[in-house]
Amino acid sequence: MVEKRLRELGLEIPPAPKPVAVYVPAVQSGRILFVSGQLPLKEGRLLLTGPVGNGGASVQDAQAAMRQCFLNALAAATTCVPVSGILRVLRLGAFVLSTPGFSEQHLVANGASDLALELFGDSGKHARAAVGVSALPLNAAVELEVAFEVTA
Amino acid sequence: MVEKRLRELGLEIPPAPKPVAVYVPAVQSGRILFVSGQLPLKEGRLLLTGPVGNGGASVQDAQAAMRQCFLNALAAATTCVPVSGILRVLRLGAFVLSTPGFSEQHLVANGASDLALELFGDSGKHARAAVGVSALPLNAAVELEVAFEVTA
Amino acid sequence: MVEKRLRELGLEIPPAPKPVAVYVPAVQSGRILFVSGQLPLKEGRLLLTGPVGNGGASVQDAQAAMRQCFLNALAAATTCVPVSGILRVLRLGAFVLSTPGFSEQHLVANGASDLALELFGDSGKHARAAVGVSALPLNAAVELEVAFEVTA
Repeated sequence: MVEKRLRELGLEIPPAPKPVAVYVPAVQSGRILFVSGQLPLKEGRLLLTGPVGNGGASVQDAQAAMRQCFLNALAAATTCVPVSGILRVLRLGAFVLSTPGFSEQHLVANGASDLALELFGDSGKHARAAVGVSALPLNAAVELEVAFEVTA
Repeated sequence: MVEKRLRELGLEIPPAPKPVAVYVPAVQSGRILFVSGQLPLKEGRLLLTGPVGNGGASVQDAQAAMRQCFLNALAAATTCVPVSGILRVLRLGAFVLSTPGFSEQHLVANGASDLALELFGDSGKHARAAVGVSALPLNAAVELEVAFEVTA
Repeated sequence: MVEKRLRELGLEIPPAPKPVAVYVPAVQSGRILFVSGQLPLKEGRLLLTGPVGNGGASVQDAQAAMRQCFLNALAAATTCVPVSGILRVLRLGAFVLSTPGFSEQHLVANGASDLALELFGDSGKHARAAVGVSALPLNAAVELEVAFEVTA
């Protein structure tokens, strides 16, 4: 179902990120799969860097970056289970590099949430926390952490 | 028990937050209930906005806002299970919008932690992370994420 | 095995942190142990305070602080299970107090990740999120949250 929706949306799960030495893309415990925080990397480059908000990147561009993060989280998940083994989206943790006074982190996070629903339907409905931070690795504009429910 | 304690404290679980389109108030997987990040909303208005600390809101006001967040988290939980199905508080993630140099996020988080203990007794004892952030949705002073243990 | 590795590395799990009134060092639910956010405390004093990055603390010092946080997380875990009951490291949440423009939170977090691998081998491979924040309790330079898989 998810694979079908990906095709319909013209999307493709990117190649699974290479496990770096010190941590892995995802870890499964029971039916919960913890996915590492994803940056908006596409073909090895960050889609968006620097803070979001007044004087910085637009909400729309940040939403697109969050969408990419969710795709990357799916890719990370497939290092543990096949796509068909991903049963539900449980939780998103959305971090938005923010200019002072910017307070629409929830709208930025919708970029990931919307894609979760588009791909998984009712099983894409998730709990979520969205916050603004002052710094992110590689100066990425956004970072997304995901927990999936998967087949045990 | 929790309902009795709420009455004794003169508190009431607010109406469950309306699920917005893109994410839901809470999601259950096995015995763990993931509750979305809660803002200090009371009757549709934020109790406290802007940063906490020197030149900003007081620790005491921020604690009261955190208390409201915990009440809202209970309301969110009841979209999945009845109050009597909430067995334990597992984890609090406390985010405090902070002025530069403010370093008492742990005291602010106590607003939520204290209420957890008042309501749940020993079952209210939880793990916790408290951090200071530069921006939050709607310029809320605090945001609280909660994980409960619930009946399967 | 972990105890043997600790000895080989000349490390010792510090005394378990005293549970403070309002929250506890760690909580177990099923096979998941949630450990509270740890500061780089050693013998009651913070190893490193203030922001990391240009004009602040060095990445190397921050890595050492993260290493201490991971040791403290082990100590916290032992309030629930013996060290031999810790089966795997599931997730690290690394918060780095950051100067503006500092974007190497992932390198700082390696201080904890590397120790996880040194102590647990393949069972130390974990999912991770690393972000930069503007404020931390007691002005600590870093804070680390950990989830372990433990014997049920």
